[in-house]
Amino acid sequence: MPELRKDPVIGRWVIIATERAKRPEDFKVDKEPATEGICPFCKGNEDRTPPEIFAIRKSETKQNQPGWDVRVVPSIKPLLKVEGELNRRGKGIYDLMDGIGAHEIVVETPEHIANIADLEEEQIVKVIDAYVHRFTELQKDVRLKYALMFKNYGHTAGAGHINHARSQIIATPVNPKRVKEELRGAKRYYEYKERCVFCDIIKQEMEDGQRLIIDIDGLIAIAPFASRFPFEVWILPKEHCCDFFKIGSEHRRDLAGIIKKVMLKLKTALNDPPYNFVLHTAPFRTPKKGYLKTIEEDFHWHIEIMPRLTRVAGFEWGTGFYINPTPPEVAAKSLRETKV
Amino acid sequence: MPELRKDPVIGRWVIIATERAKRPEDFKVDKEPATEGICPFCKGNEDRTPPEIFAIRKSETKQNQPGWDVRVVPSIKPLLKVEGELNRRGKGIYDLMDGIGAHEIVVETPEHIANIADLEEEQIVKVIDAYVHRFTELQKDVRLKYALMFKNYGHTAGAGHINHARSQIIATPVNPKRVKEELRGAKRYYEYKERCVFCDIIKQEMEDGQRLIIDIDGLIAIAPFASRFPFEVWILPKEHCCDFFKIGSEHRRDLAGIIKKVMLKLKTALNDPPYNFVLHTAPFRTPKKGYLKTIEEDFHWHIEIMPRLTRVAGFEWGTGFYINPTPPEVAAKSLRETKV
Repeated sequence: MPELRKDPVIGRWVIIATERAKRPEDFKVDKEPATEGICPFCKGNEDRTPPEIFAIRKSETKQNQPGWDVRVVPSIKPLLKVEGELNRRGKGIYDLMDGIGAHEIVVETPEHIANIADLEEEQIVKVIDAYVHRFTELQKDVRLKYALMFKNYGHTAGAGHINHARSQIIATPVNPKRVKEELRGAKRYYEYKERCVFCDIIKQEMEDGQRLIIDIDGLIAIAPFASRFPFEVWILPKEHCCDFFKIGSEHRRDLAGIIKKVMLKLKTALNDPPYNFVLHTAPFRTPKKGYLKTIEEDFHWHIEIMPRLTRVAGFEWGTGFYINPTPPEVAAKSLRETKV
Repeated sequence: MPELRKDPVIGRWVIIATERAKRPEDFKVDKEPATEGICPFCKGNEDRTPPEIFAIRKSETKQNQPGWDVRVVPSIKPLLKVEGELNRRGKGIYDLMDGIGAHEIVVETPEHIANIADLEEEQIVKVIDAYVHRFTELQKDVRLKYALMFKNYGHTAGAGHINHARSQIIATPVNPKRVKEELRGAKRYYEYKERCVFCDIIKQEMEDGQRLIIDIDGLIAIAPFASRFPFEVWILPKEHCCDFFKIGSEHRRDLAGIIKKVMLKLKTALNDPPYNFVLHTAPFRTPKKGYLKTIEEDFHWHIEIMPRLTRVAGFEWGTGFYINPTPPEVAAKSLRETKV
């Protein structure tokens, strides 16, 4: 059983995945990804994944058979497991609990396409539909407090050796430290200004224009003012809303369109870079308390995309400062001018 | 002039190094390090670095000439600069200030040796002497609040393409977010228990023994309970002290010895892995206030060593949770058994 362990100084939780235990000889330093064999995520290979949890598929096709457009399956190496109780406990001065949660893979296409940038807009709409469906389902589990949706693309960004477009959803039994920090920061701003900090960012970026990459009807893409990474991009809905999964079906096509455009611009401008793609949305909540009390007013869902062009080194680990060699104004200009 | 920018949501500061501005074509994705030319850090090449700030050298040898054992020079590409004022200001909802600070390179040996593991113990004592000297000097600058000493070894860990053992010291005009988090965590524990959390960790690890790697007279090396990385190692002095630079000269040889032993064990067990090596010590402080008021009681300097065997991916960026596939008990056992 994997364990969650809490650092007694900073309060950060760590998943200790005991079942994946690696010893020195298991690590290969600086090895390139191996060539691929049969892709378990392609249509026709449905028996190579665990049985599907959810799929968007043609009517009259059968579960775990071809005929699907988007397919959600459990991770074959889950970091957290659905079965069991949290069993929160102490061990001397330390705290730990069992690794309860969910770890799902959203296979974004039945074709062997690697990058979401290369999917049709219509296909990305279906991927969004699948996210919304899974978020809605997962928050019914009272043991779970948060669900993170993210994508790792490319070896440096932590993707495995299978080049088939997919996202991961991990639902956790505690609210992660970085999520709390973001919520508390947003709350502090709201308490002082009585306005949402993200709404203020959107307003200032639209007026200023220097860091604006795309501005369409309901959404903008910007290079954030304090970008941690070169060519970091945030996508934000203009209308205030803390929960991603409440996105109306009429807005999903716009979101798919801006995602496709941003990802194609990054692919074109930066020669198909590795990236991480992370959805920031509000935690599950019943009842509202503490820092979640005013969350509907103070938080604003958005997507953060981080191309992995630089290496995070000792200074970042030691300070939490990031070193970014590309001003966001330069990145935004370059991405605005990239034709796709 | 580089800028420090503060993320308005989380409060994290970012250095925007405008003078290093990189454009898309400047990035090479997944390239191996180039072969080396002439090493600017070797004896005889002193004119290939900026003039030295400090050196431990044989008497009657001249500055910027051979004859030194350890040499401190300014970084040729400084992230922060010594000259000027902070000029802290707003820009709409955003905050920024100029990138004032210091960025120094501690060249650890006149010979072309890459890894501190391969230096003689006596040489490492001199490196420690140089750290202490620079920390003592830097804290006289009232604009500076913190100095971080760290080492990046190997390409994946963010080292450049010159394989010559060196450390970096970066002094910053604000207390970094991760440092504050650590101090606040330690303070909270102290307020509740009236004991130092690190002293309690040392006590429990010495009694338990599972995560203990080395236990010598004045210091221990452990795999921390909530290790973020496989084979992460912390070195702690048993005697409580918040300031690294107050280390007595009688203890420097012990520290050099344990550093050498830990680094050799990692090198041997993990096939010379890339790593980050970070000193965690108390911030500069006059006068004491806020979370620094009780720092002498509640903080405890130590060194954190993180081999870079796994890649940090979307999940870590989104949550602040880390994924560590090697339980620290397994890592500690393996390192205890590694003969060096």
